[in-house]
Amino acid sequence: MTDLKIAIIGAGSPYTPELIEGLARFKDELPVREIALMDVDERRLEIMLGFCRRFAEHLGLKVVFKATTDRREAILGAEFINAQIRVGGNAARVLDEKIPLKYGVIGQETTGAGGFMKALRTIPVMLDIARDVENYSSDAWIINYTNPTGLVAEAVSKYTGAKIAGLCAGGMRPRLRVAKALGVDPEKVRYDYIGLNHMNFAFNFTVDGRPLTQEEFDRAAGAVETVDAELVRKLKLMPSSYMQYYFHTSRKLKDFQQSRHTRGEQVLMLEKEIFEAYSDPQRHTKPEALEKRGGGGYSEVALGVMRAIHNDEDKWMVVNVPNKGALKILPDDAVIETGCLINRSGIKPLAIGEVPPAVWGLICAVKNYEQLAVEAAVKGDKDLALFALMAHPLVRDYDIAKPLLEELLEANKKYLPQFFKNDA
Amino acid sequence: MTDLKIAIIGAGSPYTPELIEGLARFKDELPVREIALMDVDERRLEIMLGFCRRFAEHLGLKVVFKATTDRREAILGAEFINAQIRVGGNAARVLDEKIPLKYGVIGQETTGAGGFMKALRTIPVMLDIARDVENYSSDAWIINYTNPTGLVAEAVSKYTGAKIAGLCAGGMRPRLRVAKALGVDPEKVRYDYIGLNHMNFAFNFTVDGRPLTQEEFDRAAGAVETVDAELVRKLKLMPSSYMQYYFHTSRKLKDFQQSRHTRGEQVLMLEKEIFEAYSDPQRHTKPEALEKRGGGGYSEVALGVMRAIHNDEDKWMVVNVPNKGALKILPDDAVIETGCLINRSGIKPLAIGEVPPAVWGLICAVKNYEQLAVEAAVKGDKDLALFALMAHPLVRDYDIAKPLLEELLEANKKYLPQFFKNDA
Amino acid sequence: MTDLKIAIIGAGSPYTPELIEGLARFKDELPVREIALMDVDERRLEIMLGFCRRFAEHLGLKVVFKATTDRREAILGAEFINAQIRVGGNAARVLDEKIPLKYGVIGQETTGAGGFMKALRTIPVMLDIARDVENYSSDAWIINYTNPTGLVAEAVSKYTGAKIAGLCAGGMRPRLRVAKALGVDPEKVRYDYIGLNHMNFAFNFTVDGRPLTQEEFDRAAGAVETVDAELVRKLKLMPSSYMQYYFHTSRKLKDFQQSRHTRGEQVLMLEKEIFEAYSDPQRHTKPEALEKRGGGGYSEVALGVMRAIHNDEDKWMVVNVPNKGALKILPDDAVIETGCLINRSGIKPLAIGEVPPAVWGLICAVKNYEQLAVEAAVKGDKDLALFALMAHPLVRDYDIAKPLLEELLEANKKYLPQFFKNDA
Amino acid sequence: MTDLKIAIIGAGSPYTPELIEGLARFKDELPVREIALMDVDERRLEIMLGFCRRFAEHLGLKVVFKATTDRREAILGAEFINAQIRVGGNAARVLDEKIPLKYGVIGQETTGAGGFMKALRTIPVMLDIARDVENYSSDAWIINYTNPTGLVAEAVSKYTGAKIAGLCAGGMRPRLRVAKALGVDPEKVRYDYIGLNHMNFAFNFTVDGRPLTQEEFDRAAGAVETVDAELVRKLKLMPSSYMQYYFHTSRKLKDFQQSRHTRGEQVLMLEKEIFEAYSDPQRHTKPEALEKRGGGGYSEVALGVMRAIHNDEDKWMVVNVPNKGALKILPDDAVIETGCLINRSGIKPLAIGEVPPAVWGLICAVKNYEQLAVEAAVKGDKDLALFALMAHPLVRDYDIAKPLLEELLEANKKYLPQFFKNDA
Repeated sequence: MTDLKIAIIGAGSPYTPELIEGLARFKDELPVREIALMDVDERRLEIMLGFCRRFAEHLGLKVVFKATTDRREAILGAEFINAQIRVGGNAARVLDEKIPLKYGVIGQETTGAGGFMKALRTIPVMLDIARDVENYSSDAWIINYTNPTGLVAEAVSKYTGAKIAGLCAGGMRPRLRVAKALGVDPEKVRYDYIGLNHMNFAFNFTVDGRPLTQEEFDRAAGAVETVDAELVRKLKLMPSSYMQYYFHTSRKLKDFQQSRHTRGEQVLMLEKEIFEAYSDPQRHTKPEALEKRGGGGYSEVALGVMRAIHNDEDKWMVVNVPNKGALKILPDDAVIETGCLINRSGIKPLAIGEVPPAVWGLICAVKNYEQLAVEAAVKGDKDLALFALMAHPLVRDYDIAKPLLEELLEANKKYLPQFFKNDA
Repeated sequence: MTDLKIAIIGAGSPYTPELIEGLARFKDELPVREIALMDVDERRLEIMLGFCRRFAEHLGLKVVFKATTDRREAILGAEFINAQIRVGGNAARVLDEKIPLKYGVIGQETTGAGGFMKALRTIPVMLDIARDVENYSSDAWIINYTNPTGLVAEAVSKYTGAKIAGLCAGGMRPRLRVAKALGVDPEKVRYDYIGLNHMNFAFNFTVDGRPLTQEEFDRAAGAVETVDAELVRKLKLMPSSYMQYYFHTSRKLKDFQQSRHTRGEQVLMLEKEIFEAYSDPQRHTKPEALEKRGGGGYSEVALGVMRAIHNDEDKWMVVNVPNKGALKILPDDAVIETGCLINRSGIKPLAIGEVPPAVWGLICAVKNYEQLAVEAAVKGDKDLALFALMAHPLVRDYDIAKPLLEELLEANKKYLPQFFKNDA
Repeated sequence: MTDLKIAIIGAGSPYTPELIEGLARFKDELPVREIALMDVDERRLEIMLGFCRRFAEHLGLKVVFKATTDRREAILGAEFINAQIRVGGNAARVLDEKIPLKYGVIGQETTGAGGFMKALRTIPVMLDIARDVENYSSDAWIINYTNPTGLVAEAVSKYTGAKIAGLCAGGMRPRLRVAKALGVDPEKVRYDYIGLNHMNFAFNFTVDGRPLTQEEFDRAAGAVETVDAELVRKLKLMPSSYMQYYFHTSRKLKDFQQSRHTRGEQVLMLEKEIFEAYSDPQRHTKPEALEKRGGGGYSEVALGVMRAIHNDEDKWMVVNVPNKGALKILPDDAVIETGCLINRSGIKPLAIGEVPPAVWGLICAVKNYEQLAVEAAVKGDKDLALFALMAHPLVRDYDIAKPLLEELLEANKKYLPQFFKNDA
Repeated sequence: MTDLKIAIIGAGSPYTPELIEGLARFKDELPVREIALMDVDERRLEIMLGFCRRFAEHLGLKVVFKATTDRREAILGAEFINAQIRVGGNAARVLDEKIPLKYGVIGQETTGAGGFMKALRTIPVMLDIARDVENYSSDAWIINYTNPTGLVAEAVSKYTGAKIAGLCAGGMRPRLRVAKALGVDPEKVRYDYIGLNHMNFAFNFTVDGRPLTQEEFDRAAGAVETVDAELVRKLKLMPSSYMQYYFHTSRKLKDFQQSRHTRGEQVLMLEKEIFEAYSDPQRHTKPEALEKRGGGGYSEVALGVMRAIHNDEDKWMVVNVPNKGALKILPDDAVIETGCLINRSGIKPLAIGEVPPAVWGLICAVKNYEQLAVEAAVKGDKDLALFALMAHPLVRDYDIAKPLLEELLEANKKYLPQFFKNDA
């Protein structure tokens, strides 16, 4: 009989059932005995506890669920701490999306000024969680899909001793794109991978050890729907779909400015629908609205990481981890998103011998932003926050950054005690 | 009796008299016997020969002037080859300034898409000059103030064996600003200096060995008129005045869009006036219009470098030279603008131990652009040219870069044989 | 039906049956159809062909054996080229062992002046083999256990385009030591690994993800019989057993000087016995003398690498590969022995974030030697050969290196055409 | 009227008059008002005070001498703190020379096990001095010629905030050798310079900007009397004369073993003679025995550094300073001996773009030793001390290092409180 316990911090997230589904699918490889659901939102927590029990039973997953608002109770004894919090909820997200637009810059959940604001709100809370992990379950791994996952992982690994895997479904997506385009088994697709979360490139693709031809690459490259296919072909690099915000900035900005609702607003509406479904005591399957919610794939990646660690099986995956010299253009303590070897001894980045000549400067620029944003978030330092926005390629202009920062800070005041220390 | 010969390539430039003035001022330290004036524009060359002779006599500079359209003749036997060419003249410059504005991006002589175009036109010609120097006067130094000087120096040092000092008056300007603000001797002002031509920062200022106080720095920092003083104070870095295009992009763009004439157009008018004055056989002094032409200070820097080399005197100056490990965030063969020790054995960069945390990513981004632009210029490769524009923080957007590149190339067709090889 | 072909270059080695045994053991995972035995020694080749057939049948391995003295025939169509050559045979080895002793320095097959001589003889032949692989079977992997394996791998990866895995049983030995000392499954033991072939250290051990206690490390460390246990405990690094030649130089030198026979001489005698056994047409099992021959374990490592590549299974192993930034104290193109992720897309080193403070200088010194030795071997340059011996910590003294080099070159003259080009 | 004060810590050294002589020679450029002589040896201090007054008067140097045993009094208000202490005196030096010989390794004042012992005795005292400078005269420069000067400079720059120039006459010696061999002005000779104190190489020589021919280099190289001329010619690097201990280890060891007296013993005798001379109230000139004492040239280098700093004149000199990225094969905080630009703002190393391929590993090995020795000296850690000796190419062997360390520590017990803390 196993005693594997998993904690889910931010269990009120509508994604929690996706994780349950993953755990059910891999129950033999990851035989969980207890799942601790933790959230600060008691209502959501209660709904989720009820639904998860029904859902697990429906899936044939035998596991004890516990719900708690006490973080330490959830963490204690857990081998994996899944973190998927959203400080300020989707209401704050909507502001992240809308305020930048007023200044003529991209407003987006994880990229640019929006992602920056999310980082300022989120990092202090994630550091508290990480310190609890360090103190109450020091061998445990934080399996993080709280965004911006790269900045969260950098903050946690710089400022605490907790072990953290910064996850993003995007890291394994090049594999899926190539597999689909060429009709091959995804597991046979390999590549080098360089960059940061939502600022990255896959290249040197092989299938079954054989390098892709240019024609094959071009076919697969077309699957990155958000970036111009001709550009991708020229670059010979498969970009993250988020590269659209860098390569098609003006077009995306116009799109955002013309949409009736931001993505956050849509999500708010969808979540209402999703939670109504979860609340239905007869329901034991995932609501359809969840599909529209998007963002799936995390649970698959999370399961992949947890299985490799738990079972000590060597496994290559793309994860956000401290650089440690893998990528020589960035500092050793910078978190990068890159190909890693995972097993029970940890998550170790492969050395990246070759830096694509067309994009290394952009990667450096965004990492510089990330460093400054992390430090600003931890110290509550407004000048660093200003420098961070100016270091970001999507803002950069002081005349934009300065008033934008003021408005963002003011709008998020209640979630930023570190910036408003002396206001009591 | 000395046999020191100096060549001026692009001697038809209105600045040539400034160099003559410098040579007159330092005639004891740099006892020139012969000055070879070379230009492809015979009319300008003739005017300049006449004026230089009158001007030199007026200044008491005893020197033999020779004018030639044969570059090799000018170079042969010269110790210093002053290069100040302008491929396409100011007419091309005006296009560099105007075309980008149509696409909503900064059009400027040395920065952004304008500087990029200038690089594409200029680098092949400068490589030809450098190869002539290598073959006909291999010990000579190219004293370059042809813009963009950083890219020119990188191309010459990567692709030829000629010795080149990439000069810019900007490198010594922090010294003048501090000296003026604090009322001290400029020679007493020292600093660390990081970055690239027109993308750089001075810091760690001392006067007479004593570090500046924050209040002193703030006073001096106010002298960078183009960048917001509060920002400079916060950064604790004195930026190049060209940093305005990065830190105040939207404001500068609006300024440019609202000006009746571009700087190039003004210069075209001024140069007409200046050359009329030079043509006057009675005139032996610099015309007033030359002051309005701006850009002075180069000759002082050029004299400083030539004196230190010729007389083998140790001298600290800011020059554009190959990195050679001085700045670890950039490749060894990247040309950087930085503090160097100059003497007869060469120009050697000081190691830069400390990288300012707020701006390193921006410097990397611009260097990435520079590398790509140099390679595109040398190879005539359109994809590299596109990547260069996309690597540049002031363009970046593919939807802008692509049509902008098309129009720039087409407009400069006659100066870009490397890009239109197969069009004959 | 599979068409997997394996070539064995240097098949006359007494170790060939060990490889056959490995292939029999893993026949389901590595279903070989054909084994091409190639050697320049026809007599040995014939004996080995006969024995291998009997041995394979005995082991239940159904495979077609072909013997040839034509290297290209063996290589053509093979997926793996196992290389285990010994240029000059054990007779040359005896000289490698004996000549250095005359000069008061360690004589050993792979380390010091002996290993250096072996490299000079071996590298040119290995480059010929690698070029054949490149031309006749370009997707194939060279599975190399020809010593000195690190220098061979560096030469092949610098001077040819062939893929090579430089193997040594030593890389996985820390796992076996810890497993035995603690009574745990070897597969559960993980570690970081730094250095070069026969100059390396394992550290940061975990078992099942849990770091070893100092007491546990000490217990396992005692298993490195060749290095003083107290020293290993203090270092907190588990050294290669070959570190004895560096840490106990004087003691080992005395041992060598006092032995009646060198290891090479013993091997010569054993090999005679072994080959007599192989020649016996009744024999279908490994002779006992083979055990005394030592050096086993390679075949297990070779099988591990071939299985991971062939089946595209992610697998962590210690291999000699180009550095590519994994270890920042060494150049990118230096071959290092380190922990790698292996699968069908290749063998990629993990980034080594932490450099043990007590031994990095020694590693640098030996790598400097290796670089010089490889270049000397390829170019036949006597000055480089001298510098190589002087860069080696076990020689270093010019007054020793100079005459020692002369004698070594002269004694190996017939195997060193690159050094005696003009002697015809 | 100037108020320039200079302190001499360890003023009882027989070299003090050399410094006085230098100050007299450059009295116009370095107009000293007061010289504070400080020593812990009152007798020597009194003798030196008397002699210095007579000597200065004889040389026409008008300066106030003060003698004190109070270090802080000497330091207070001084612009330069000349440090030339010898903890344990020449008696301890003799042990440094003799004890290693018993173990078959070189015993020498600054290199190998002898230099190591000197470092252990000296570093704690130099740190005390540096902390006094930091507290009582924070703008002052420590002009250090206390050996081992590289380790002292590394300790002071790592563990205190005091400014220190680690000097050695050896850094400028290549200039003198070339000047003499070619009959040129020493000031015209320039070179690149790589390495550590007493472990370094000059290369890329120019005279008047012109690279030396191989023939010219060979002529100059012959002037390194301690290293085989043919070797120097092959290396194309001019080594420190101390490289003899690395390149001719066995020969030097035999020399030492056969000498009747160590250098330290000779010095002890000479110093007796020198001090008798100094004590003579009629004497106002340097005694002849001082010449035999050797080691001169420091004062010239010291005057060069002090003049460049005091007068803020740009000057190239070879000094021991923190690396700061100048030499990429070593850590940023490692002190290296290299070409620097000196002026009032400090001493800044030039970037070293080219690392000589034959010797970089040896430099790394010795720097590794130095790091460990400094840390051992500061912490009084016996394991680190053992690792330091083992990292040193001249010791390395554990079976030698271990008993040698025991004997060295025991013999120096009274000067090593940090190692014998618990012995009270």
